[in-house]
Amino acid sequence: MEEPELSTLKHFIASDQLSLDETRALLDEAYALKYNKGLITEWAKRTLLIGKSLGVIFFDPSLRTRVTFDLAMQQLGGHSIVLDVGKGVWKIEHREKVVMDGDATEHLIEAAKVMSRYINGMAIRAFPEGKSWADDKLDPIINGFAKYATVPIISAESSVWHPCQGLADIMTIDDRLKGTKKEPIVITWAWHPKALPMAVPNSILMESAKFGMDVRLAHPPGWELDDDIMARARELSAAAGGSVRVYDNFEDALSGARVVYAKSWGSLKNYGKPEVEAAAKADLRDHWRVRMRHMERTDKGIFMHCLPTRRNVEVDGDVLDSPFNAAYDEAENRLHVQKAVLLRSLRAE
Amino acid sequence: MEEPELSTLKHFIASDQLSLDETRALLDEAYALKYNKGLITEWAKRTLLIGKSLGVIFFDPSLRTRVTFDLAMQQLGGHSIVLDVGKGVWKIEHREKVVMDGDATEHLIEAAKVMSRYINGMAIRAFPEGKSWADDKLDPIINGFAKYATVPIISAESSVWHPCQGLADIMTIDDRLKGTKKEPIVITWAWHPKALPMAVPNSILMESAKFGMDVRLAHPPGWELDDDIMARARELSAAAGGSVRVYDNFEDALSGARVVYAKSWGSLKNYGKPEVEAAAKADLRDHWRVRMRHMERTDKGIFMHCLPTRRNVEVDGDVLDSPFNAAYDEAENRLHVQKAVLLRSLRAE
Amino acid sequence: MEEPELSTLKHFIASDQLSLDETRALLDEAYALKYNKGLITEWAKRTLLIGKSLGVIFFDPSLRTRVTFDLAMQQLGGHSIVLDVGKGVWKIEHREKVVMDGDATEHLIEAAKVMSRYINGMAIRAFPEGKSWADDKLDPIINGFAKYATVPIISAESSVWHPCQGLADIMTIDDRLKGTKKEPIVITWAWHPKALPMAVPNSILMESAKFGMDVRLAHPPGWELDDDIMARARELSAAAGGSVRVYDNFEDALSGARVVYAKSWGSLKNYGKPEVEAAAKADLRDHWRVRMRHMERTDKGIFMHCLPTRRNVEVDGDVLDSPFNAAYDEAENRLHVQKAVLLRSLRAE
Repeated sequence: MEEPELSTLKHFIASDQLSLDETRALLDEAYALKYNKGLITEWAKRTLLIGKSLGVIFFDPSLRTRVTFDLAMQQLGGHSIVLDVGKGVWKIEHREKVVMDGDATEHLIEAAKVMSRYINGMAIRAFPEGKSWADDKLDPIINGFAKYATVPIISAESSVWHPCQGLADIMTIDDRLKGTKKEPIVITWAWHPKALPMAVPNSILMESAKFGMDVRLAHPPGWELDDDIMARARELSAAAGGSVRVYDNFEDALSGARVVYAKSWGSLKNYGKPEVEAAAKADLRDHWRVRMRHMERTDKGIFMHCLPTRRNVEVDGDVLDSPFNAAYDEAENRLHVQKAVLLRSLRAE
Repeated sequence: MEEPELSTLKHFIASDQLSLDETRALLDEAYALKYNKGLITEWAKRTLLIGKSLGVIFFDPSLRTRVTFDLAMQQLGGHSIVLDVGKGVWKIEHREKVVMDGDATEHLIEAAKVMSRYINGMAIRAFPEGKSWADDKLDPIINGFAKYATVPIISAESSVWHPCQGLADIMTIDDRLKGTKKEPIVITWAWHPKALPMAVPNSILMESAKFGMDVRLAHPPGWELDDDIMARARELSAAAGGSVRVYDNFEDALSGARVVYAKSWGSLKNYGKPEVEAAAKADLRDHWRVRMRHMERTDKGIFMHCLPTRRNVEVDGDVLDSPFNAAYDEAENRLHVQKAVLLRSLRAE
Repeated sequence: MEEPELSTLKHFIASDQLSLDETRALLDEAYALKYNKGLITEWAKRTLLIGKSLGVIFFDPSLRTRVTFDLAMQQLGGHSIVLDVGKGVWKIEHREKVVMDGDATEHLIEAAKVMSRYINGMAIRAFPEGKSWADDKLDPIINGFAKYATVPIISAESSVWHPCQGLADIMTIDDRLKGTKKEPIVITWAWHPKALPMAVPNSILMESAKFGMDVRLAHPPGWELDDDIMARARELSAAAGGSVRVYDNFEDALSGARVVYAKSWGSLKNYGKPEVEAAAKADLRDHWRVRMRHMERTDKGIFMHCLPTRRNVEVDGDVLDSPFNAAYDEAENRLHVQKAVLLRSLRAE
């Protein structure tokens, strides 16, 4: 994975794209918006993006992302237009040079160029196809829009990254723990009936590494994250004076933890083979679920999950209903960090 | 059915929740908004809900509800975000304590708590499941949101009630008849190919009883409304000096009627058995449809229906196209009463 | 086809409805909005439609139409409500006097009358049913709304016309060529796997004829446009001092062309028989596609297409990626002409 060159652009796609200082600056803006810090008045905030519009384009479902981008634009004085590809909007082809005699009606190149004539930026959600990791790792939809659009592209979760989630997560940790440096975080795989994308674990891994946390990544053998992602996380962690360790049993990582971040993801080893993956994890179901007894072994740790989560499958309902749960704060912070990202991307457009 | 304790809350869920006086106060506000009464100017109205946002969450389709909630917020200076569950938004599980290894991705508890972080209120439409009346009568989705949300919940039709429709209906009657007291209203079942929900007849029954009308409920034997609903209607009717009588032939109820309110609903006796229900009503099709000759037997009565209606099935097209038809007024009044409800629920939030 | 009498109404449905002068006046308004001409300030523009709302009703998918109507209302100070019929909104029946015991839940009459109570105008997209051209030519949905609504109806593409596309097209030509009079335009059929509607070729044919262009309509034998459309185009063309000629090979029409407008459409001869149509055009695939060598034979012509287009099927990707391509301008101009149409239709409502 090459060093990204995106930080000079207004696109926001990768969780390792912004430096620690740039990320902190975004969080400072998000805090100011959340807690009404600074000189700006409530009314002035409502005019920051006046006359600006955002296209919010979903290739896949969403609740938090859908609501927060719309609301963020509205509360800053702008306007959003939400589009669901394949439902109401034409199906979009992303492969370059393809002969379009199949199912898709519109090419990404036209969609990107046309939308750029109308709006000031686009937030795009496109999950992986789930057949080949080599293909999905190229993130063709989000990168295609970034290549062909002439306005800023903000990822609302792609195959590789969920950068706004990563920002909301690190803001939640920083806000609840009053700092992040060397704080122990357990990022743990959880059992789930489906083979889910890796964007969320990649992003929280990268942000917690970037912020110098004591990162404890736990997953069963076979559920390793991508090697390039791991290498990049270790690099950022070292630069920030933190650490990244991998555990094959999340229970071994709980002692002293201040954060337990649970999330399921699919196995790269069995990528594109859901039945094989399901069989390989059949025995893991009872063990890899966060329960109250796990939270009680932490150092007053907070429970985190990007949501949606399956109650009593990834995590016990008891944990979600307890004071350990910080997932609603996480969800709320999506609104605040996305406002900061939108101001960075759209204000000068 | 216990006495509801909702009137002190800002939720708006049940048609028997508000007293006659409270309901009249809402109608007064709706009249003021509709006819520009009072001191408030057109421009001032546009700022009443400035900075407020409403989530409008559909588990089922809608035309009037979808347009009027959006427009009401917009015209009062606020903003709405419309979400279609299962289309674009994750499928939602409402059963408590369930192990979520099935189809649904998100639990109602998370949806309610997360949405409460973003917006100032929610309007929710959730039709009955249609399998067990005992289950549907508990109205698990609307009551689940009311339980777990920390912002006001407004029903946009649930299994048991369609309270905004009931308000629009009684406003239409009051406006067209210049009063409601002891006015004869025929609420009649109509034939329809499907077994439809009872929320609309429950709500118009309750409001007309509450307002002291001479209520004539007509349906074939076997299509009785829920016993608790009937008892509550008789109680409110008695308190208001009105009456509630049941007819097994709507033609017997027409004489002197000022309102004919037609609506189909399913049989509680055959609840969850659509084929049995369909067979039981096969012979009723020709008879239970409102025609011009019926309207002509009333005392210059108005024809009402919540819409959508099936032309030449529930009611003849002739009636809908005649001056008897007040259904478009009813539909319009949805906008005005919902503005009043939104002001009541959201203004102080 | 009778002379339309729509120009005194505020509906905007047919591409031959407005006279040349009326069309020019709309384009002048669109230019003023696009290039900020005239005395009106950026801020004043944002208040032109304040308090107005537009229903945007889709019976079929859309990208450009969906975004531009919403954005146009928003940028002029108004509000739009986008509805997808059959997805989230009830399925609508348009046949008059039908007994509605089938699939559709709501009749167009009720939808039109109820929506007229809420909003100030409606933009409606309804593609042809594709079974009988005699039926589709009557354009029952758009004309049904125009008949029953009491607010202006704007076509967002019907069976017969795509009038806003036609306006955007002629604006693009006029803007790029600095005039239209006697300029040669090739309107050419292109091969496509499906039998597509004729609304777009009808509209560009009519506008280019109305503006006195040297119109060269090219299609294989069997893909003639409707006789009444052709007769009306010749009539408008004659009045404007232009010409309309038909070619059975688009390559013969390229010499000196300033515009190549490519678009596929279905064969009237085999209307409603997609398999027969597909077989009849199997041999045409290689020939009827616009390539760079075709554009190079024009007089620095621009390539136009309404979009979406299938790359390497209707037109080579090379052409779309070249400076010949004016399709993104066309798409952008949809926004500007629709603002002009909305101002014409809604301002006084």
